[in-house]
Amino acid sequence: MIINEQERDAVYKTIFNRRDVRGEFLPDPVPDDVIRRILVAAHHAPSVGFMQPWDFVLVSDVEVKRRVKAGFEEAHREAAGLFDDERRAVYQQLKLEGITEAPLGICITCDRARTGPVVIGRTANPEMDLYSSVCAVQNLWLAARAENLGVGWVSIIHHDRLREALGIPQHIVPIAYLCVGYVSRFHERPELEKAGWLPRMELADLIHRNQW
Amino acid sequence: MIINEQERDAVYKTIFNRRDVRGEFLPDPVPDDVIRRILVAAHHAPSVGFMQPWDFVLVSDVEVKRRVKAGFEEAHREAAGLFDDERRAVYQQLKLEGITEAPLGICITCDRARTGPVVIGRTANPEMDLYSSVCAVQNLWLAARAENLGVGWVSIIHHDRLREALGIPQHIVPIAYLCVGYVSRFHERPELEKAGWLPRMELADLIHRNQW
Repeated sequence: MIINEQERDAVYKTIFNRRDVRGEFLPDPVPDDVIRRILVAAHHAPSVGFMQPWDFVLVSDVEVKRRVKAGFEEAHREAAGLFDDERRAVYQQLKLEGITEAPLGICITCDRARTGPVVIGRTANPEMDLYSSVCAVQNLWLAARAENLGVGWVSIIHHDRLREALGIPQHIVPIAYLCVGYVSRFHERPELEKAGWLPRMELADLIHRNQW
Repeated sequence: MIINEQERDAVYKTIFNRRDVRGEFLPDPVPDDVIRRILVAAHHAPSVGFMQPWDFVLVSDVEVKRRVKAGFEEAHREAAGLFDDERRAVYQQLKLEGITEAPLGICITCDRARTGPVVIGRTANPEMDLYSSVCAVQNLWLAARAENLGVGWVSIIHHDRLREALGIPQHIVPIAYLCVGYVSRFHERPELEKAGWLPRMELADLIHRNQW
């Protein structure tokens, strides 16, 4: 199957215009067929030993979202204490999640025991199954952007609080809680770059040839 | 920036036709501008706290590839001993990498100390920087597929052997060693699925609503 230049450019357009969305979610519901398409995309991520270790918990219930939000707020307070005074003031002003505003939450997980203890490709690197679920996150994120849906990854929450909020069994590892919905706009650049938190690095500085 | 339906479909086509390539690499060199485009795509992955923790080691040198291959062979022998007899026979027949055949290797890493000890979004979940580099892998993989380039992820190698082969400092975490090149063909389905190792799971069985 050949991908032509127009199709290639569509992939790049999607990659370059993908953003982590926090403050621009609209309440409009995401149609079921669109949700299904982005989940199918996630399900076609690469997985170590074809293990497909992911599950998807779809969250639309307001009370469940409130519990996730409470978990975020707890971890967010802890985090603020870790920054020095100047950075803390900036940190506390940043809008970092849209848990209750986004019409849909999607938690992507990893079942490390799914296909038994020995998995092709996970023998030397036991973290590979977790990485497979991360690839599913990124597939879903790009598919969502191609559907003009915003996605925001909420990582400021402890696994156990997420497990409690969503009834996730103890042996399942939460990988990402994603806020998903249509948006009023996509930022042209990442918000932390625009806010002057950190600059975009020069790609040339990150490339090594044959040896580091 | 709106993505239209044609562009959306190009993204899905790329996602569904991406494969882990092991046996179909052609020796044709990958042009520099193509390499640059897929690296730019990787560099536009999401990263926790805009940390951009990745580096890229490009491998074209035959002797370096031989050292990576030797690391694979060592870990592959160890792995074979972990399967029961029946599975071992199948495992040993599988072609699992194209390290020396692929014209280009790309090692993607994670520098966990890149922007200091406190990173927005990494406070409750310290693994988030590793996951950012995995997102860069998946961006590169999809960009490569959109360029009709095959990619294979070699995970059967220990980090220290990869560090030795590529001169990677001890504090840098190798995330993926990717074999990259044009291919004679892309398989229609994942090779482990075709080989009957594991079936594609039913997506419906992986979806939960509000509670697991």
